Parts: sequence; structure tokens; C-alpha cells
Amino acid sequence: MLLEQINQPEDLKRLSIAELEELAGEIRQFLIEKLSVTGGHLAPNLGVVELTIALHTLFHSPYDKLIFDVGHQAYVHKILTGRKDRFDTLRKYKGLCGFVKRSESEHDVWEAGHSSTSLSAAMGMAMARDLKGEHNKVVAVIGDGAITGGMALEAMNHIGHEKKNLIVILNDNEMSIAPNVGAIHNYLSKIRSDRHYLKAKEELEHLLKKIPAIGGTLAKTAEKLKDSLKYFVLNGVWFEELGFTYIGPVDGHNLTVLLETLKQAEKVNGPVLVHVVTTKGKGYTPAEKDSLSWHGAGPYKIESGQMLKAVGHPMYTEVFGNTLIELSEKDSRIVAVTPAMPGGSGLLKFAKRFPDRMIDVGIAEQHAATLCAGLASEGLKPVYAVYSTFLQRAYDQVVHDICRPKLNVMFAIDRAGFVGPDGETHQGVYDIPFLRTLPNMVLMMPKDERELRNMMQTALEYNEGPIAYRYPRINGTGASTEETPTAIPIGTWETVRDGDHVAVLAVGPMVQIAEEAAELLAKEGIQLRVVNARFIKPIDEAYLLELAEIGMPIITMEEGAIQGGFGSSVMEFYAEKGVVNQQVKLMGVPDYFVEHGSVKEQREEVGLTVQHLMVEVKASLPRKRQRA
Amino acid sequence: MLLEQINQPEDLKRLSIAELEELAGEIRQFLIEKLSVTGGHLAPNLGVVELTIALHTLFHSPYDKLIFDVGHQAYVHKILTGRKDRFDTLRKYKGLCGFVKRSESEHDVWEAGHSSTSLSAAMGMAMARDLKGEHNKVVAVIGDGAITGGMALEAMNHIGHEKKNLIVILNDNEMSIAPNVGAIHNYLSKIRSDRHYLKAKEELEHLLKKIPAIGGTLAKTAEKLKDSLKYFVLNGVWFEELGFTYIGPVDGHNLTVLLETLKQAEKVNGPVLVHVVTTKGKGYTPAEKDSLSWHGAGPYKIESGQMLKAVGHPMYTEVFGNTLIELSEKDSRIVAVTPAMPGGSGLLKFAKRFPDRMIDVGIAEQHAATLCAGLASEGLKPVYAVYSTFLQRAYDQVVHDICRPKLNVMFAIDRAGFVGPDGETHQGVYDIPFLRTLPNMVLMMPKDERELRNMMQTALEYNEGPIAYRYPRINGTGASTEETPTAIPIGTWETVRDGDHVAVLAVGPMVQIAEEAAELLAKEGIQLRVVNARFIKPIDEAYLLELAEIGMPIITMEEGAIQGGFGSSVMEFYAEKGVVNQQVKLMGVPDYFVEHGSVKEQREEVGLTVQHLMVEVKASLPRKRQRA
Repeated sequence: MLLEQINQPEDLKRLSIAELEELAGEIRQFLIEKLSVTGGHLAPNLGVVELTIALHTLFHSPYDKLIFDVGHQAYVHKILTGRKDRFDTLRKYKGLCGFVKRSESEHDVWEAGHSSTSLSAAMGMAMARDLKGEHNKVVAVIGDGAITGGMALEAMNHIGHEKKNLIVILNDNEMSIAPNVGAIHNYLSKIRSDRHYLKAKEELEHLLKKIPAIGGTLAKTAEKLKDSLKYFVLNGVWFEELGFTYIGPVDGHNLTVLLETLKQAEKVNGPVLVHVVTTKGKGYTPAEKDSLSWHGAGPYKIESGQMLKAVGHPMYTEVFGNTLIELSEKDSRIVAVTPAMPGGSGLLKFAKRFPDRMIDVGIAEQHAATLCAGLASEGLKPVYAVYSTFLQRAYDQVVHDICRPKLNVMFAIDRAGFVGPDGETHQGVYDIPFLRTLPNMVLMMPKDERELRNMMQTALEYNEGPIAYRYPRINGTGASTEETPTAIPIGTWETVRDGDHVAVLAVGPMVQIAEEAAELLAKEGIQLRVVNARFIKPIDEAYLLELAEIGMPIITMEEGAIQGGFGSSVMEFYAEKGVVNQQVKLMGVPDYFVEHGSVKEQREEVGLTVQHLMVEVKASLPRKRQRA
Repeated sequence: MLLEQINQPEDLKRLSIAELEELAGEIRQFLIEKLSVTGGHLAPNLGVVELTIALHTLFHSPYDKLIFDVGHQAYVHKILTGRKDRFDTLRKYKGLCGFVKRSESEHDVWEAGHSSTSLSAAMGMAMARDLKGEHNKVVAVIGDGAITGGMALEAMNHIGHEKKNLIVILNDNEMSIAPNVGAIHNYLSKIRSDRHYLKAKEELEHLLKKIPAIGGTLAKTAEKLKDSLKYFVLNGVWFEELGFTYIGPVDGHNLTVLLETLKQAEKVNGPVLVHVVTTKGKGYTPAEKDSLSWHGAGPYKIESGQMLKAVGHPMYTEVFGNTLIELSEKDSRIVAVTPAMPGGSGLLKFAKRFPDRMIDVGIAEQHAATLCAGLASEGLKPVYAVYSTFLQRAYDQVVHDICRPKLNVMFAIDRAGFVGPDGETHQGVYDIPFLRTLPNMVLMMPKDERELRNMMQTALEYNEGPIAYRYPRINGTGASTEETPTAIPIGTWETVRDGDHVAVLAVGPMVQIAEEAAELLAKEGIQLRVVNARFIKPIDEAYLLELAEIGMPIITMEEGAIQGGFGSSVMEFYAEKGVVNQQVKLMGVPDYFVEHGSVKEQREEVGLTVQHLMVEVKASLPRKRQRA
């Protein structure tokens, strides 16, 4: 095996093209085998095997900076930079990260998880290089989906202006996670289909040679026509006008072509964009045929390509998708908006049922939010379906375009709380602090899937401004979803289990944990009251005043940052009301970034478990009872 | 006066072109006179007089939707839609808003304050129209600076794909607030200078007629050459490739041309971009000559164009700019990054002194943040100089690209707290909640300009991750800025005035208010301790424990949202430590958007004044003392 001899990028430089091709085959096999056990981003990585080999063969990492946008397509990079032995731990607790990670290797010069950051990072590194008088290369690899994210376009506008030496590899596989949409995508498709244009170049030059003979004003015109040659022979005029030298499109699975093209790119003065066409899932038939499902896959059987499905109740995501169809049948004002996540957000069935009311804007979280504002301003009821972590991209739009003018936008915030193997870049633990601190926002979280449905109905009936429901990336509890959803009075909580000693104000899935703890505590004679704090904002003020009156110690429990979280809002309320002696303990995610693992491991790490709650309840009891 | 007869857009439709031109002159005069007293965005509005008249003459507002990006250039729109009599109250407390405002008029269909939102809003309105089966026009007016903001580019990518009927007016005045930078700007400049290209069109067609006779493969080539005609004769190929029909450039001060062009645009099927060239400050010589200073101006003398300068100590902004130069003389790692605000951020002198270390990325807050991350990852010490309200645009980049990998980015957050006449879209009152809730972030605010300098030194010496100092849009206190700045130990507070009865933990300018209150309270025998809570994060835990031990009532005071603010972090700390009986009162900005007025009026409205503090201090005293 050649792969066994590759422990660092330098090892590649000794290999012939034929050997590199052989290595590519071995790496594909390695990925297919390893990921069949661990799961992971198979299709994106199979697509960049040759490209990554070519980059590490030609450039000198880490002196030269190789930057992978998003970073879920950097497995090959990890394999080539000394981490192939750790692939059994991929995306597992304390194991190899599924994204690029600076703490893992000196070759990981940039880390991400969210898309479209690579060009800005590359530009920063290129400017730093020039200021320091260094001469290293800076290369960013970005997908055709990621490049349409606003910050990537902002970066291109800057890069094209400043003319720094910098290589952008546009990895064009016609997909981000879902099939790409958007005008830039259409443009790239046109380029790919127009490859024959290049052949016309010689013929055209032949024609033009005859023109000077015509003389007069026509000669001048011909002169200009020659200038415009680039518009005719170069496909990438759109990029050229942005100040880039465009090279491509080239076959991203042909190592000879790739190495030659990259050498050419290296010589260009100023920013250059190399348009590389790859196939997602290349070399593994099931993944090639359905790269959407194989973008991020769980474990699977290699031969059949059959994915091993986890059993369990339907995920919240699925319940959301089904319920949205139900509601939309009755209410034609509902439209769904997604930033390139129709599948992940559970909207594929909705898209089939209501194609006109399904709006996939591509990777464009900011635009999606303000688009919703525009739709709402004309009386529609848009649902912005988005992951908690990606909504961070639209924070200003939520503040400025939705909360401020009080527009009726509904937010369906998926992946709220811990997300498991995607880890720290994807944890949905900041949306409570960043949303509940905004005026006019209503924020809910259901204790189970039935309540999710009721919250969706609540949102639909609410016409006083923005309203959001957040739900976790886990299976539901198995609660019935048969009943017609009914609205919940805004700002009301629910006593799930009564108790006299301590009250836990639990948010979302914490309710179930609290119920389990209450059950166990009851056996010890401790009566824990479990409150379903289904409204994170507005909070149930009457309920809180009642608790204060009784003088019952309170524990708040949320799968979100403690800092500025739901628990804080409880304390803010008591401070406002001048309630001083109320005992409040905050349970949530402490002030650091929690890494990848299972949701269970992540909850264990920060203490959001039945056992931890029991300890806190006992500590909250009046001293006398503690001793008893 | 024609203007007297114009009370609604319909009134324009009766006027001849000559009369419309006369009206334009009257409106210019009106603006120059009114704004000489109130101040306001003179130059942008003088630039769009004819354009706004043309829009309201041709379209039917509010049935047709006219959307103004940012909205500071909508004064003419306000004049034409029945609000001319309120211009004496422009940007004043309870007066006419300086931006578009839905609550002011049915003609204000979209409101903003931040740039680059108009295309997303317009697309939302166009999609809503089509879903509802309506036939109104949707027109967005956006500047050549704003169109390079990431969300506007995201919107273009979506609009060009969906092909909805929608008119984008690109108001190209070669400026946003500062002179524009970026590749798109360069491209637009090229278009403007290439107007003669159009003349070549006829000649070229004449030439091409001869080509079919050539026959053979050349004929095919000629066929393709014809197809490529658009690349030659149309300037706007960049926009055409994005799916827009491009029309322009046209003279934005010629009403005849404008009306004809808009009629043509109205007939186009699908999205159309009309490139209109205007002159900022048109018709008022001082503003035409220096549109940067006249973008947003205070009161001035009409004849001389002399602005009436407010007297006072130097603004914090100025102290920041000067100190940055001082520090940069000694430390070559410092680079300054601004998203199109070199003037507003006090960086003009820095830019002259260190042109290579001054990076203006254009309106691109997201890119700017991640660019800083890239620079920091290579060992430089970037300062991201940005207004609090605009940093909202880069929230995800701060979380994901800076805090998470703990990169040494320094944030200089200007306009923190109330901003006065710009009002609710620009209030800097959310940065405490959205920054202090992020892991690894250090957040400071100085009590005066001397301390700002010390904080800048602190930030420079700090190498453990991101660090931010926020400062207000007001004059300094007059504190000396002569001393060499020295670092402050991270996480320490300062007792500014001792006292035994109540402690106020004051942030930034609140320290001065607290000192005044303490002085007055002392006369009544109440000893208020004034603590300069210069570190908002990390808080001074030892100090807080000491206060709890003494059992002194605490008041926190910050010019920022109460929800999730500094005060909350104090309570979170006590909750964590199990301190139950500590009395804490939170003073700050309550949970609604505070409108325009002076900073004094805004503070008065929410109770951030000496008098309010005195009341709260008295209420915080133990009952016995209160009665005494």
C-alpha cells in the first residue's frame, strides 16, 4: 500500500503521477471503509481526493497555507498530514474532529464548520504575508455553494480590488448540501456546458486577422473587437470583471491536468480563480448516484450502500416538516424559506406539495431573513427554517429587519442545543441569549413533538411580530402527533409535575430529564416540581411571582449558554420586581465551546443529566432538609 | 411655488417635464434651507432629487412598492408624500425620522438604517405579489456602496435565478459614506468611462453583416460571435450574467432621460437593473465639492457652507484614532480594518500615516471580521474598528471565526450606547448581550478617554484571544490623554468613590453620572460607592464577593439592554456562587427600541440619569434608613 508510506505531505513529492493515481484509489478505499463504521461526510471527500493530493504535491504546507472552506471536505487533507491512524475516532468524543481544527495539526491553518469563510481568511493571510515580507502561497478551496454566501462575495469584491497573490480553487460539484440554486450557479453550469467555446478560439483569431484590411472606422471597431476577445474565449468573464484571472473549467479527477493547471495558477500575478469540476461521491456508486443522502452519512454497509438507520421515534425535524404541510393546507399565507437546507430542515415533502411556496435561497442566511421580512410586510406568514447555529449569520437582520419593525416572521430553529458529532461549530447554544435579549421577540421550546405542533399553531395565530420555536436534533419522545394542533397562550408555563420542595424550570428536552429526576427524588422523599418553561420569552411572570411568594428554591435548566440565557431572564425579572431572597440556580452550558461527541456525552460533560439535576435539587433544599 | 401644491405623489402626474424640473430646483432649495437648521443627510438627498421625482411620477405608490436602501436618502420621498411640513422636526425627539419609517406613512413600505437590505425586501415583496396574484411593481433604490454588502449580493444571486419582475435602481454616485472600494466599484467606474462603447454598436453590426458570406466553419464562428455581441455592446455583462437585464448608465439628473429609461425598465420581463449615475450634493456647491463631509452634516451657514461645530472635549472616536497611531508607531503588528467607515471611525489620519496597514473593505462587516481572524492567525494584531450596531452584521463571524479559535482580534466598538439623532436603527445597545455571552471574549468600556487609551494598550498586550473596547458617541470628559497608556489588569474594577450604603457598578459614561449622584447624595447623608466596572467580561469576581460579604446593595448601570446585559452577568455570578440574599437592581435600556432624539433625551426616557439613579439608590437602602 502506498498510503502506508504517506505520513506527511513531503512524502507525496517523491511519487510519480501513476503512483499518485494509485494513491487516490487507496484513499478512496480507505474513506469508504472507515466511514462505513464511523459515518461522516463521505461524498464531499470522495469528490476531492485528486484535488487534495494535487494541492499537497505541489504546495508546501504548512508554509504555504491551504484553507478548506467549511472543512468537512478535509478528510483527505487529514489523511495526508499524519492523521490517518485516528480515523476510527472520527467525530467521536475526544476523537478526530470532522472539520479542520487548528489544535490537531500545524497543517490546519484555518478552521471552520460554517461555510463561506475561507476567502476572507485567505485574504487575511495573504495581507499578513505581504506586510511581513514573506513569500508563501495562500490557497483557498471553496465549493460552488459556499461561494454564493454573502461573506464570500464580500471577500471576492475586496480580493479583486487589492490584487494580492492568492489562489481560489472553486470546487464545482453542482451541490452544496442540497442541489445549488442561484444565478451564480446557473452561470457556472453555463460555463461547464460551454467548454467547446474554447475550440472556437483559434478559428476566431484566424477571422480577425483579415479585419485590419478593411480599414477606416471599421478598423477601430475591429481593434475593440479584439479587446473584447476575452469575453468570447474566456468563460469566466464574471470572475474576470471582479479582478480575478479565471482558469478553467478543468477536470478535478485528472491528476495530470490538475497539477498542470495549479502550476499555471501559481505563476499568475494577482488573484486567480481555478474552476475545478468534481463529482461528489466519486468512486463509490451509491454516493455518486445520491450525493444528497451521502453528503453526511451515518454508518452503512459497503457493498449494498445501505445506511444503518438508527431506530427511534421520529425526529423533531420530521414532525416539523409534516406539521407544516398540515398547516399550509389550511392557510395559504404560509411560505417556507430555507438557506440551502431543504433536506436537513425536513422540508423535502413540503417542497413537493407546495413548490410555489418553498423558497430555497441557497447559502444566504442573511438574505433569507430579510426576504422573510419582505414577505411578511405584504401579509404572508413566512417560516424561516434554519439551524440555530446558522441563524447566527442573520443576527443583524433579525434585530434590524424583523424585530424592530415587528414583522410577523416565524422562525423554525432546528438543531437547538447540542448537535452531537458536528461539534463546537454547530452547537445550537447561543440562540437563547441572542434572541431573547431582543425586543418584540417571542421564543418557545417544546417539551415534546406534540407541543412542537401546538407551538407551530401558536406561531401561526400570533400576529404581533416575530415568533420562534426551537427544537433539538434528537428523536422525539413518542408523544402523539395525531391531534389537531391548538395554540398555547403566549407567555404561559405548565406544571408538568407538582412538588413542594424545589421547582425546576425546564426548557425543551430538559423537561423529560427533570421528570426522571423527580421520579427518583420522590423515592427519597423529595418533591421536585417540574415546570415546562415552554415560553423562554416572554416568561410566565405570574408563575414566577407565585414561586417567590411560596419561597420555593428554583433551578433553571436549559440546553443553551448559561450566560445571558433563560435562567438569567428569570433573575432579571426578580431583580426588576425587587424580589431579593429568591434562590435561583442556573443549569446550562458553561462558558466554553463544547466539542464533538454524542449528545449524551456532551450533556454529561456539562452536567445536564438526571444525576446532576438530582445533586442540584438536594443542594437547593433548605439546610435543615439537606441534613435530614 | 410648485412644491406647495405637492401633497401626494399623484400631484406630480399633472406636471410637465419643465414643471418637474422646476420642482426639483424648489426641493433642492427646501432641503438646503431646512437642513441648514436641523442638520441631516444633505448630500445623499441632493443627489436623488430627480430620481425620486421620476419614480413617484411614473409609479403608483403605495400600490407600487418603492424601497429605499438604508433610507437616509428618502427625504425627497418624504417631501413628496405629504411630510414636507414636518421637516423642522427632522431627526429630533418625537420628530420626523431621518430614515424611512413604516409608522410615518403608507408610502414607507420598507424601513431600514443599515445598508444592503433593500434587494432582499424587494424580492420578498415581489414573491408575495406573485403568490397573491397581484400586479404591482416593486422598485428598489440601492447605492453602489450598499450593493457590495454581502446580503445584497446574496439577494442578487437569488433574484437573478428566480426571474421575478423587479426593478433595481443602482444609484451610482461613486460613494457610500466614504469613497467606495472594491472590484465591483472598479467595474462600475469602467462602465461609466466606457460609454463611448455604445457608439461602436452600429459599426459592429455593419461589419458582421459581411461575415456570413465567408462560409464554412468560419460562418459558425461568426454565428457565435453574434451571440457574443452582448458582451461587446452591453456594459453590464456582470449583471447580465447574474440574470438581470442591464440598462445604463444614464444621467440621474436628467428627468427626460430618467422617465424614458424607467418606462423602458417597466416593460422588461424579469429582473432589471437600471444604472443611474448621480452626483452627491448636486446643486449645492460646498456639498458637491466635499460630499464626504456633507454625507451627514450638522447645521451650517447656507452661503458659506460653514458647518456650525459643537464645542466640547474631543470625541472618543478622535482619541481612539490618535492613540492608534501612537501605538502603531511602536508596534508594527497593528493593522486597522474598517467596513467603509474610515472617517466615522476616526481612522483618516491613521490611513495617511500607515496606508499599508489601513484596510477599508467596503460595506462588508462579515468579511472584515473574518479577514481580521486571518490576519491574527498569522501573528498580526488587527483592530476591527466598527460601530456597535454594524458589528451585529458580523455576529456569526465573531462567534465562529474569532471567539471559537481564540484569535487575537481587537475590537474598537464605536457608537456604543445611545447614538442620538440616527435613532433606533443605530443604537449601540445590544453589543454587551451579544458579546459578553460568548466564550473567550474580553469586553471593556472606559469611564473616560484616558482610560480608553489604557484599554487600547491592554488589548495590545493581551494575547489570549479576542478583546474589545466599546466607547460612546459623545465628547470625552476632558481627561488628560498625555500620559503613555498602560495596561489594566484583566477583569479588575476600580473604586472611583468610596461609600458604605449602596454600591453602583457603573459602565463607561455611567461612571460620571454615578459620581454626580454620589456628590448630591452625600449632601443628604447617603454614601454611594461608585465602582468603575471597566471590565464587562470577565467581571471582577473578588470585588463582587467582597460586596456580598459586606451585604451592600448593588445597582448596576449600563447604557445597553438590560436583558442579558452586564447586570445579568453579576447576578449569574452570584447564582453560581450560591449567594442568595444579595440585593441587585439593574439599570439599563429596557426591552424596546428607543427612537431618535438627543442622547440626553434618550437617557432621560429610559432613566439613565443622575436623578433616576438617586431614586434607585434611596430605594435600595435598608428600610430603616429609607424611613430615616
